[in-house]
Amino acid sequence: MRIDGIHYRTIWMEEDPGIVKVIDQRILPFEFRILELKNVNDAYDAIALMAVRGAPLIGATAAFGLYLAAYRSSSDQWCEEVSAAAEKLITARPTAVNLKYAVDLLMEKVDCVASRESMIKELFHLSMRFAEDEVNRSKKIGEHGISLIGEIHDKVNRPVQILTHCNAGWLACVDYGTALAPIYLAHDRGIPVHVWVDETRPRNQGARLTAYELGKHGVPHTVIVDNAGGHLIQKGEVDLVIVGSDRTTRNGDVANKIGTYLKALAARDNGIPFYVALPSSSIDLNLDDGSKIEIENRDEAEVTQMEGLNQETGMRSTVRILPPGSDVANPGFDITPAKLVTGLITEMGICKATEEGIKALLLK
Amino acid sequence: MRIDGIHYRTIWMEEDPGIVKVIDQRILPFEFRILELKNVNDAYDAIALMAVRGAPLIGATAAFGLYLAAYRSSSDQWCEEVSAAAEKLITARPTAVNLKYAVDLLMEKVDCVASRESMIKELFHLSMRFAEDEVNRSKKIGEHGISLIGEIHDKVNRPVQILTHCNAGWLACVDYGTALAPIYLAHDRGIPVHVWVDETRPRNQGARLTAYELGKHGVPHTVIVDNAGGHLIQKGEVDLVIVGSDRTTRNGDVANKIGTYLKALAARDNGIPFYVALPSSSIDLNLDDGSKIEIENRDEAEVTQMEGLNQETGMRSTVRILPPGSDVANPGFDITPAKLVTGLITEMGICKATEEGIKALLLK
Repeated sequence: MRIDGIHYRTIWMEEDPGIVKVIDQRILPFEFRILELKNVNDAYDAIALMAVRGAPLIGATAAFGLYLAAYRSSSDQWCEEVSAAAEKLITARPTAVNLKYAVDLLMEKVDCVASRESMIKELFHLSMRFAEDEVNRSKKIGEHGISLIGEIHDKVNRPVQILTHCNAGWLACVDYGTALAPIYLAHDRGIPVHVWVDETRPRNQGARLTAYELGKHGVPHTVIVDNAGGHLIQKGEVDLVIVGSDRTTRNGDVANKIGTYLKALAARDNGIPFYVALPSSSIDLNLDDGSKIEIENRDEAEVTQMEGLNQETGMRSTVRILPPGSDVANPGFDITPAKLVTGLITEMGICKATEEGIKALLLK
Repeated sequence: MRIDGIHYRTIWMEEDPGIVKVIDQRILPFEFRILELKNVNDAYDAIALMAVRGAPLIGATAAFGLYLAAYRSSSDQWCEEVSAAAEKLITARPTAVNLKYAVDLLMEKVDCVASRESMIKELFHLSMRFAEDEVNRSKKIGEHGISLIGEIHDKVNRPVQILTHCNAGWLACVDYGTALAPIYLAHDRGIPVHVWVDETRPRNQGARLTAYELGKHGVPHTVIVDNAGGHLIQKGEVDLVIVGSDRTTRNGDVANKIGTYLKALAARDNGIPFYVALPSSSIDLNLDDGSKIEIENRDEAEVTQMEGLNQETGMRSTVRILPPGSDVANPGFDITPAKLVTGLITEMGICKATEEGIKALLLK
């Protein structure tokens, strides 16, 4: 999508075949800085230190990391070096399923008997394809989701009010996003939309990333604290909720950023549709329901500290916002039960959040 | 309640009859500083600049402010000066109903024919009484609410897990608090409790004040982001929710800090009791229901900025946490519909959140 009028993806290459570029998302929205990844260590660090985040982008970064390993390899040991790079990359963020998926996908094609040059070419094409596939999947999610926005607009004949939680935008993917894909397409095609952006404590991905990317692309939006969404839904200020998902179980339960469940409750209490946008690959048919998903308790510092721009110096600065001595708990995700989910928007179409709905869609 | 082993109220006097002391709540929990109020201007500033907050404490500060006006008055013009002080005090925070209530209560007793000395004595006693009445009301709320905690403890035989939102503790009152009063009494009487403290964005009264006062009094507690409460309730980690209320309507709808409604939804979805603790004076029998309450949209800076201790300098510091150019909305309160409220805990007893329940209680 656009930043100050220029089209960007979250990962790309220019002329130099030895450089992969990504946006350093750790310092957004306060600074816009492009990182040059020149070898597998750079790719590993970008993933491990969270310069890139979001399952699709992590996968794409790992794919390009493998390509860089081949590109920088020595002519006699290239195959060992690429294998070692694969081993290393999958440990960059152990819980990111898409990471292993991307690495395995490329490694299947690595043939140690082939020439180094042909393998470099092959891994280049596979990485580009991986990124392109991610873009197409996001765009298809957008194409399916835009119908929901269009239908509401036909009824209300004013900007469609959409609430979202966390960042499921193009910054988490390669382009378009998941939850934000229908919104970008609607905006670009002239369906007026306005987005309520949940701040999304503790990591503030809504305030930092979703607000940034919507703002840079020119989509009207308003940032609110996570506490405010229920009130706005009550007051009729929200037509539709769309969020992303980290993992969806066979019965339609949705694991997503902590706080998602509360918005789903408010949507149901007020008869507002609550949709979840996701690539079909994130539906785990092996899990019966959300109770089987373990919720990680994350670092206390996410709750106790806050980063921003110091008002005096204009520099990035971290403040401690809690009294010392208080315990902190920081569950990272919650489970929105299927009963609260109006539907799942995937690249294959929209389905009900039920086992029947999901199976009918995936077997289409 | 206690701070580092010493018993405090939020407003008090020591030997000097010309000095009223309050805790500067603007800089809690980062600094503990006592302000000396020496005249009506000091009292006005403490209220207007929010060194003191919470309806009961604002009322008490106004009462003592009127006393200070008399104490500092000139012998020939004392009555005019006290009247002028009353006029000034009620403008300190225009929407604080208790402020006008306190000033009117004292001014009714001001008799310009009486001697200045007798009036100083009278206003001193009335102010002390006002504060004492607040303490007694809070304590009675605690006495009624403790039964709920005790009943749960008898069943579960482990620490009772209570979730609260915002600060309805002793810092908002003169002592004990409203929502926290039953918790303090339970703790002091040996019923083990553990409190989940909602951070309460945007002003972080939970993280800043509730965590501080519970910690200083020694009550076990854990701070969470506002997003986390739904998940904890789902997981069976919460036995009871108790919150305060700014205003409750005749039918039992509750206006309280933004985000309260979302916790009430989660409590109902999981069959957990949701109680609201409040002085009966905050029940507005003239309002049919919550839709009649106007919700103020507060200052954007509460959302865009965050105060804390700078990690490098150890000094209080403010950071901007939002990208420039994003719109911000900041509704201060929401309405929890009566259907989600298990009961109201008042100084007069516990009642159902219905017109019948409320009337039966108030007419007892």
